[in-house]
Amino acid sequence: MAGTLILAANNVQEKEMKNIFIHHVYFWLKNAGNKEDLDKLVAGLKKLSAVKTIQQFHIGKPADTKRDVIDTSYSASWLVFFDNKADQDSYQTDPIHLKFVEECSTLWQKVIVYDTVAM
Amino acid sequence: MAGTLILAANNVQEKEMKNIFIHHVYFWLKNAGNKEDLDKLVAGLKKLSAVKTIQQFHIGKPADTKRDVIDTSYSASWLVFFDNKADQDSYQTDPIHLKFVEECSTLWQKVIVYDTVAM
Repeated sequence: MAGTLILAANNVQEKEMKNIFIHHVYFWLKNAGNKEDLDKLVAGLKKLSAVKTIQQFHIGKPADTKRDVIDTSYSASWLVFFDNKADQDSYQTDPIHLKFVEECSTLWQKVIVYDTVAM
Repeated sequence: MAGTLILAANNVQEKEMKNIFIHHVYFWLKNAGNKEDLDKLVAGLKKLSAVKTIQQFHIGKPADTKRDVIDTSYSASWLVFFDNKADQDSYQTDPIHLKFVEECSTLWQKVIVYDTVAM
């Protein structure tokens, strides 16, 4: 099915993702809870997803889980898989990314980025 | 190749992940930079990955990127894909998970969890 992950096999070993560069961004909107602003951000992220070096992406919101350690205060999550750091670096200066920042950066008050590679 | 993501096609639409429950945990060790403690945590996460409802997982460390918005202060990242919230809920009470918490929770001083579903 489109957009789902296909596993080569079922054992634990092959469930482990390696050789990817994970770029996970959490956005806190200035007008948290404002549907129009959130829609603008999501529309911007969809355009941003056209960057060629993006292998897979996910646009999300906090799930309906509640524990002390869970942060549900963000407005949107942007998870992107790149093949490697070079692809992430080129994404940062891609015209599509610069356009996204230009069009959408006034919407958020805070952004936290976690860039992660295999241990 | 084992552990990589297989895309059904190359267009933008099919790069989008949907219908998944994303559980992303960041750990800050008490003894940050202590290799032995980090190794213990990683070994614990590998055992934890045996939980049946886990579809895919990634064990990571901060990438070599530096910008003001990037948080590189965590010791380890644990990214897990579940099919849905029910599977995540059952993971929380799975004996393998309880054992992980029992064996490893003394290692960390802080944990932040972001549970995310499609917008």
